[in-house]
Amino acid sequence: MKIITISREFGSGGREMGKRLSDMLGIAYYDTEIITEIAKQTNLDENYVSTISEKGVPSFNFHFGHTFGATINRTAMDVVIAQHKVIKEIAQKGDCVIVGRCADKILKDFEPFRIFVHADMDYKLARCRERSPEDAKLDDKQMIKKIKAVDNGRKKMHEFCSGGEWGDMKDYDLCINTTGLVIKDIVPSVYNYLISWFQCKNHI
Amino acid sequence: MKIITISREFGSGGREMGKRLSDMLGIAYYDTEIITEIAKQTNLDENYVSTISEKGVPSFNFHFGHTFGATINRTAMDVVIAQHKVIKEIAQKGDCVIVGRCADKILKDFEPFRIFVHADMDYKLARCRERSPEDAKLDDKQMIKKIKAVDNGRKKMHEFCSGGEWGDMKDYDLCINTTGLVIKDIVPSVYNYLISWFQCKNHI
Repeated sequence: MKIITISREFGSGGREMGKRLSDMLGIAYYDTEIITEIAKQTNLDENYVSTISEKGVPSFNFHFGHTFGATINRTAMDVVIAQHKVIKEIAQKGDCVIVGRCADKILKDFEPFRIFVHADMDYKLARCRERSPEDAKLDDKQMIKKIKAVDNGRKKMHEFCSGGEWGDMKDYDLCINTTGLVIKDIVPSVYNYLISWFQCKNHI
Repeated sequence: MKIITISREFGSGGREMGKRLSDMLGIAYYDTEIITEIAKQTNLDENYVSTISEKGVPSFNFHFGHTFGATINRTAMDVVIAQHKVIKEIAQKGDCVIVGRCADKILKDFEPFRIFVHADMDYKLARCRERSPEDAKLDDKQMIKKIKAVDNGRKKMHEFCSGGEWGDMKDYDLCINTTGLVIKDIVPSVYNYLISWFQCKNHI
């Protein structure tokens, strides 16, 4: 069985890499489809589900007598629970590539090939400029702020789901720095690597 | 020009990977040869040079009147300076694979392909058991202590040379988790990846 999970910094090209790998492997690809399914299962708005899935569960501090603590939003927790369920259902269907959504942690027992894609800020900035015409009004400083905010949300959600640190190489099988690379040109060798990895692990 | 630097956790198989890559590429391989050359250039004992190169420069704290500070051993600094010189001389000779010795940082201007090799402790422990018959007397706890101590030395030396953090994925082009892998079986796909990387970067 081949499950490939892709964690990625915003603007690093991780999503494109995931799509291209699934095409080369001829297997299913999941990204925003997961949000749609969670929304369906929880009867919640897709935008809300997307926000929770990408930015983590909001918490607020409370003070009761001498006790301080934090509580979390119940509806947001429903999203997290549904996310675990949906991702496990997807994996049970068969081989696939899943981008983001803490799939690397949720599917630990399936022994997925876990990729982390990252890049220097200049590369991510240029890539966002090319691919986000809706952000044309943002200057570089604002764009960098946006990139950092998206990654910070992913980090929070990942740490909430797993307790581990987002972007710690120990938690991945291959960490790829895409700085200066053209994604479509490097994907065949990532494909080649993961096939060898699955062979070494006797998964195929 | 193709320079490949390999940083590695003790027991992860990074050295074997480096040797095999240099064989596949038909280029020079440097590891302990660097120590011999530094010893020659500094007229210092090879064991001493090896200790400094692997464990970092010892410092001691001093207290003078109201001033606290740290000073470093002059001879040890000579080793560090010679290490920079020797590694740059090696790179100027042509394509090569260099294992350890902060070569990734020292050769930054050569734009090397920077690999970091790591693995889970169980894998490193088993590999050390297989390959270090001289450590047969150590029990698992002592062996783990040794593995951690070697890595701690590498970390200290790396941070002394570069100011950066050893093992932070941002500083590498490819971070490879060898847990459960047979090095000789995975090397061809690492070779394949680095050839694509040099092509993408227009180095060949």
